[in-house]
Amino acid sequence: MVLAQVETPALVLDLDVFERNLAVMETELAGTGVRLRAHAKAHKCVEIAKRQIAAGAVGVCCQKVSEAVAMVEGGIGNVLVSNEIVSSKKLASLCGLARQAEIAVCCDNSDVVPLLSQAALGAGVELSVLVEIDVGGGRCGVAPGDAAAVLAEQIDGAGGLKFAGLQAYFGSAQHRRTFEEREQASSKTVEGVRLTKEAFRKVGLDRDWVTGGGTGSYPFERDSGLFTEVQAGSYAFLDADYARILDGGGKPTATFGHSLFLLSTVISANGTDRAVLDAGHKAHSNDSGPAQVFGMSGLEIAGQADEHMVVAIDADGPRLRVGDQIHLIPGHVDPTFNLHDWLVCVRNDVVEDVWPISARGPGY
Amino acid sequence: MVLAQVETPALVLDLDVFERNLAVMETELAGTGVRLRAHAKAHKCVEIAKRQIAAGAVGVCCQKVSEAVAMVEGGIGNVLVSNEIVSSKKLASLCGLARQAEIAVCCDNSDVVPLLSQAALGAGVELSVLVEIDVGGGRCGVAPGDAAAVLAEQIDGAGGLKFAGLQAYFGSAQHRRTFEEREQASSKTVEGVRLTKEAFRKVGLDRDWVTGGGTGSYPFERDSGLFTEVQAGSYAFLDADYARILDGGGKPTATFGHSLFLLSTVISANGTDRAVLDAGHKAHSNDSGPAQVFGMSGLEIAGQADEHMVVAIDADGPRLRVGDQIHLIPGHVDPTFNLHDWLVCVRNDVVEDVWPISARGPGY
Repeated sequence: MVLAQVETPALVLDLDVFERNLAVMETELAGTGVRLRAHAKAHKCVEIAKRQIAAGAVGVCCQKVSEAVAMVEGGIGNVLVSNEIVSSKKLASLCGLARQAEIAVCCDNSDVVPLLSQAALGAGVELSVLVEIDVGGGRCGVAPGDAAAVLAEQIDGAGGLKFAGLQAYFGSAQHRRTFEEREQASSKTVEGVRLTKEAFRKVGLDRDWVTGGGTGSYPFERDSGLFTEVQAGSYAFLDADYARILDGGGKPTATFGHSLFLLSTVISANGTDRAVLDAGHKAHSNDSGPAQVFGMSGLEIAGQADEHMVVAIDADGPRLRVGDQIHLIPGHVDPTFNLHDWLVCVRNDVVEDVWPISARGPGY
Repeated sequence: MVLAQVETPALVLDLDVFERNLAVMETELAGTGVRLRAHAKAHKCVEIAKRQIAAGAVGVCCQKVSEAVAMVEGGIGNVLVSNEIVSSKKLASLCGLARQAEIAVCCDNSDVVPLLSQAALGAGVELSVLVEIDVGGGRCGVAPGDAAAVLAEQIDGAGGLKFAGLQAYFGSAQHRRTFEEREQASSKTVEGVRLTKEAFRKVGLDRDWVTGGGTGSYPFERDSGLFTEVQAGSYAFLDADYARILDGGGKPTATFGHSLFLLSTVISANGTDRAVLDAGHKAHSNDSGPAQVFGMSGLEIAGQADEHMVVAIDADGPRLRVGDQIHLIPGHVDPTFNLHDWLVCVRNDVVEDVWPISARGPGY
């Protein structure tokens, strides 16, 4: 089947670009001693995770227990839930996975330690727990330094738990436009890690494992001398938002290429200045800005509703007709993947495979 | 099971309020000769559609063939696809449904008429086709008046097709804040319908069926003397965005109540001024603004990421602890339903049923 025969809206992966992105990341980390822990929350697809591991990733991370379940059931052997899990039922499910795979989870609150311990003991496993610190993102995480060490001691002393290391992730910093902004945020991250490792050392609990960083900041964590892995996910796909981040010279960072597209079709074309596509909020998440038209000039997404996108056509732009297929670069990879059940994998516009996005959903 | 035992994030329907909303809409239309065609794109749930029909709706409308398939398979006997469908495969699927249910679809382009005809003839059915006019929304629709009549004639003359009437829907007008803004947009809608019906009459093709309107504008369409049905959907749930629209006196329109909630849990609480919930873009669509905390004062959603919401806590606000459940009013019903596979139905905080959201997804 060729791409022109695919019903839309469809999420499409260009395998050549995808594979190149994986190889580029492998090269980026080669010889540094820092490993990739690919963020499966970006794609929620076991087949992608397998290819990331084949390209050097130590395993994956997930944000939800449900994502971890899908990954382990799909054969992924090493999963970090890079988030706080605070429900006994969810923790029981997570500890069940620890019988067949290497599983770890984050913690930022002493109230949760007894729940973690109870779940691990109930499942008869030793659960690896990382302390998460807040390095400026203002989201999850305990304060760097002594507070983190107190929590580490509590985890270390609890039955069924193994205090395993440190997570420091500055989410919003990934998307800051300039190199300097990202560098500054990452300096704060690294300083928080240094402080916390010092506090861990004082209580005899320093561990090697330090994890964090993403597609926007990984070069800083890689070169910090403190991180042992980076959690990039979007690198494999490159959305419109990440394509706007700039390198040290003020130019778009061209390390990775666009491999992920939302294929859409013109369903209404009653003017020369606009057309309407069959993809809206239910097929594309515009939380980080609109999608971008790929491979055609003079076209810009002017609006998005539940099932429609309106394309504004420049005076010099092409005349669109009903039935025309349009390739869109998603504004944000993660929540766009989450809207789709299937990923159509193509090479030179021929469909090579269809992969289930089995961990999609609100998650638990 | 009580609500406190439900794992989060979960989409929750308060059945008492939901049933009251259905009854209110029935009263709003009683004796007007105008029927409700409930918009199933809002909820994508057969069980809800059945209850809307039991409360007087003539049937449902959908935006996608895939939604129509789920509705007809679930036993709904009257479905309008209130959108343009331009693919032969999708049209074949739609016409297959017309063998077992009353099915209609919109058209705004003469290029599509042969495709519609071919699909209907291929399935051995007569497909009802409405001409859609653009009444100012700048999205789908042919120009009101003569252009619409030309298209109607073409449909009327094509094999397998029955020219059935007119759709006039002004999507963005639904959400305009003031009564006057909505009234003005609706006047434009009604004027477009009047013009078009006149043009239809001139070519001997006037039809009674005129459909459109939504939760924000239905009183105007109802009272127009031209519309025979209104396409409200959100009325049954009332999201945070619709709760902001004002009546003629400048006060929030209090016709409907909040029946839909996103149940979430505090997973991080390391400060007195903020906490973090386990629901983000993957459980809530913030395309129309943030969710709102329900039933607790001093709390405001300050940010949303893929799997997290940050709650800002006022100086007078409550101290939140890890594990606390928070009820959120979704910012926008339709794309939030679309993220969930199940709807947890409760009465007095006791779970009474769980309904599948079987038509969710990007759709085809």
